[in-house]
Formats: sequence, C-alpha cells, structure tokens
Amino acid sequence: MNEESFVRKLTALFPQSPDVTVGPGDDCAVLDLGSPDLLLAAVDQVISDVHYTRETAPEAVAGKLIKRNISDIASMGGVPTHALLSLAVNPMDEEWLLAFHQGIAKEAAAYGISVIGGDMAKLFTVGQALSLTILGKVERGKLCRRSQAGEGDLLYATGRFGNSFLSGHHLAFTPRLKEARFLAGDFTCAMQDVSDGLVKDAARMAEASGLALQLEPDRVPLRTGASPESALTEGEDYELLFALPARLRSRLESAWPFPDTELTCIGRFVPGDPGSVSSLKLNPKQTGYDHFQ
Amino acid sequence: MNEESFVRKLTALFPQSPDVTVGPGDDCAVLDLGSPDLLLAAVDQVISDVHYTRETAPEAVAGKLIKRNISDIASMGGVPTHALLSLAVNPMDEEWLLAFHQGIAKEAAAYGISVIGGDMAKLFTVGQALSLTILGKVERGKLCRRSQAGEGDLLYATGRFGNSFLSGHHLAFTPRLKEARFLAGDFTCAMQDVSDGLVKDAARMAEASGLALQLEPDRVPLRTGASPESALTEGEDYELLFALPARLRSRLESAWPFPDTELTCIGRFVPGDPGSVSSLKLNPKQTGYDHFQ
Repeated sequence: MNEESFVRKLTALFPQSPDVTVGPGDDCAVLDLGSPDLLLAAVDQVISDVHYTRETAPEAVAGKLIKRNISDIASMGGVPTHALLSLAVNPMDEEWLLAFHQGIAKEAAAYGISVIGGDMAKLFTVGQALSLTILGKVERGKLCRRSQAGEGDLLYATGRFGNSFLSGHHLAFTPRLKEARFLAGDFTCAMQDVSDGLVKDAARMAEASGLALQLEPDRVPLRTGASPESALTEGEDYELLFALPARLRSRLESAWPFPDTELTCIGRFVPGDPGSVSSLKLNPKQTGYDHFQ
Repeated sequence: MNEESFVRKLTALFPQSPDVTVGPGDDCAVLDLGSPDLLLAAVDQVISDVHYTRETAPEAVAGKLIKRNISDIASMGGVPTHALLSLAVNPMDEEWLLAFHQGIAKEAAAYGISVIGGDMAKLFTVGQALSLTILGKVERGKLCRRSQAGEGDLLYATGRFGNSFLSGHHLAFTPRLKEARFLAGDFTCAMQDVSDGLVKDAARMAEASGLALQLEPDRVPLRTGASPESALTEGEDYELLFALPARLRSRLESAWPFPDTELTCIGRFVPGDPGSVSSLKLNPKQTGYDHFQ
C-alpha cells in the first residue's frame, strides 16, 4: 500500500467531534472552541540522520523544528501562539540540550510563541527524535484550507525551489508567515506549504479541491544550484502555494509588499481528475503553451 | 546538575504570554483563550525498550501512550478532548502501525477524544519513539494545580501502589478520570498523578505549594506483589494524589461513589522546608505517630 492510501486508512479510524472544523489531512487541524478565533494545532518532528546530521548545530536543529511548524500555521492563514516539546534523546547531553532549548527560545521569542510544556525521555540508542506541537489562531475570515481552490484559480508560489538540503535552506529558511497573513482572506482561502515537494504538495491541493492542475514547470523559480527536477520534487522548501482567483491577479501583483519574496504564477486549477497534474511547457516560438504530458 | 534543576534551567528560557494560566511544571499547561472553559495541553511519549518491550502488543503500547496523557488531563480536573500523534518508527511496519492506531482509536472513542492530526517519520534505526499531545478542557472552578495544597490539608491517594511493571499495571491501568472529575472543585483544587513515584511526585506537590509533607508510608496501599519500597518509588501508578482540606474529610469519605477505587489518607501538608518529606511511622502501641526521619 502506498503512503498516501495507508495514511488515509489510518485517518478513517478516527471520527471527529463537532468542534473539529478541519481534521487530519491539512497542514493543521482547526478547532472551534467558542473563542473569537479558531484554534490551530499541528505536530511535526525532526530526527537525527534523517532530517539533519549529527554535525548540525543544536540551535539549527531547534530552528528547523519550530520553523517548519510555524510554516504549517502560516499556510492556514494563522499566527503561532504556543508550543510543546517532546524530546527522545540519547545521550542526555546537557550542553547539547541547553543549546537546543536556547535555539527554540530564540525563534519562539521572534514569533511571539510561548513554550508551555514538554516531555524529555531517554531514547534506547544514540540519536534523537524531536517533536514539537504548535498551537495557533486564525480569524474565521482568514482560515485557509488546501481544499478551497476553485475552478480557474491560478496557482501561485512564493520564493524559489530546489536544492534545499545542499544549500542549507532546510535549516536557514524563514517561514512565510507575514506573506501568508497578507494573503489570507483577502486574496486566497486555499493555501499550503511545500514540505514534501512542489508537485506532490500542489497535487494534494488539487485533489483536496476536487480539481486537476495544469502546472507550468518552466516558470518555477530555481534556488541557486537547483535543477528543475529538484525544484519540483525535492521538498523542504517551506514556500507557500496558494490559489488565486484570476480576477485578483493584477491587484495582488501590484499590492505585493514583499520585494524580497518572489511571487510567481506557476499553474492553474482546472476541471479534471482530482489531483492529476498535467505540465504545460512554455514554447518560446508561440505566445501560448503546449501540453506535453 | 540533577534532572529537576536542569529542567528548571531550561524552563526559565521561556517567558509566558498573558493567556498562559499555568505554564511548564504542572501535569498540563493551562490556557485562557476566552472560551467558557480553560484549555489544557500536555505531551507525553513512550519509547521502545524504555517504556515497553518490543514484545508488547501494539494495542497495549497505544493504550499506555494515550492513557498516561489522559491521566495528566484528569489530574488538572479536566476532561480530554483532542489528540495529535507524532510517531518516529522503524521499520514502517503497516501491520504494527495499523494495530497501534486501532489501539489509539479504541481508547479515544472510550474517552470521547478526537484524534485530529499527526506526523509519522522514519527513525534512523530499528525501534520506536511515540509521542502524543493531548488537549482538554476544564471549567474555571474545577481547575486543579499541584501548587494549591494548603497548610494542614490532608494528602489523599486513590488506588494502590507499586509493582507496576511486573504486574502489567503500567499497560492495563485505567486513568482516574471519573474520580478526578468528582473531586475537582468540590473537594480539592490541588491534584496530580503519580508517574515518577509516589514520594517524588508528592514532594513536587508540596514544593509547588511552598509546604513540607508528613508522609505516612505504612498507610500506602500496596498493589499485589508490591514491596513498600516499590510502592513509594517505582512510579507508573497513574493514581491521583490530592490535597483535602481537613474539614472535608468525613464528607468526602461518606460521599465517595467509587467502591472499586480505594481512597486513603497518606499524609498531611505542614509548614516547613518546601518539598521536604518526613515520614511518620505508625506505632501500633500508641494511638499517635512517631517521627522517624
């Protein structure tokens, strides 16, 4: 069974109570607890020898862990508020752990997050499995879900893609929080971040929205040193994908207040097999596009 | 540096925002998000070869993981509502993972918990680090904190203690949720669960309350096969400790509606060095007690 269908099988085991606005399957769960804002919750982890090497500085490991969670909050249109840590480590190296917690504290302070609790336990062998649960909030009118792309909407991306690991971007990235807050509600209610790879994540958005996607791979901006293939598939970009109603295109492009963050139209949501992706190749001799797949 | 002071040093790195009613250091964090009830949040983990053996059935591992979190919610006087899973596993054994999730689903259904999200990643070597974040709610008048024991309050415990591992109690226990809900607000606002060992956890309650504790170790009920020492120190009992104002003693003992759950007075909070524990030994030739330490 492939990963997606296995996860779907597991998810089906869990019925959701009426206060769950969005359950498993989006970047965050969304709860309506009767507060003015909706509550966002997500959990993500980093594991030694998988998400970082044992040579990675503890502050950088911490930064990656909390920032990838912040990116999940951003993609729902929200702001992060609280975090809990769950650390399985061996050895219990106080120097490493102190530096790691200092790294968490630094980012938490920068983003206004209170670290409200945690658990630390010894792993059975040398290494680390580090998990962070993030809570956040979003105004009801700003909530973004990957399922809300509409027919004819344009697919936009922030930033550049590919070569995340070798370039160090996967540690040094800045989650697109301010960009997401600018977009949410006013320009889009369909957003997600790119962690598993641009095409895979864009396809999830199309599938959740019941639409197909026409992707224009040649338009995807490349990070320095990135091959087109790594830009489309490598992941860990922590950029935003969002659906923009076509009528808002010129308004968005003229209003975009982040000169350091590129904003690129890379495709369009169209009727078709939900989640299917066709690629449009720019043909320099024509003004339009050729289907090539 | 010992564990407690190291954890205190780490905790000091994290300032808390005004909506944090209780931050790190209790069984749960407590947030006031403007809803009628307060929000509870805690995270706890189980690790292969540490909290269970590789022979433990996946359903039992799941049960332990979610029930120890429910016990944390109970000890704050609340009810559990939502959970998120964070699993680092190797191999990605679909049969094991399905049974594990079925075990989570069974307990979640029994306690009315929605599992709203999660993350699954591959661990770098064979084994498992499994974390669960639990959310809950508690009425403002029912919130219990370990810091709220008063001078002269009696220390009560539910159930029996010791021999948790060998007896299988650490897997099979029932979190004291209904007992905690009965007690919270009406009889106590100072409660915690016993996970690290009765004396250690009781001392934490005394310390947080700025009081000393006179413990009556001979009164501590023993689980079948338990030595007095294991009852006081082994942990993983998942029983409740709570402070009872002395004037409520007879009212509680006559009102206690749980005939299958023992209720025992095992000590008293007194002025003294915060967190210090002195033991009172029952002297059968006297009507009173002797200090022996």
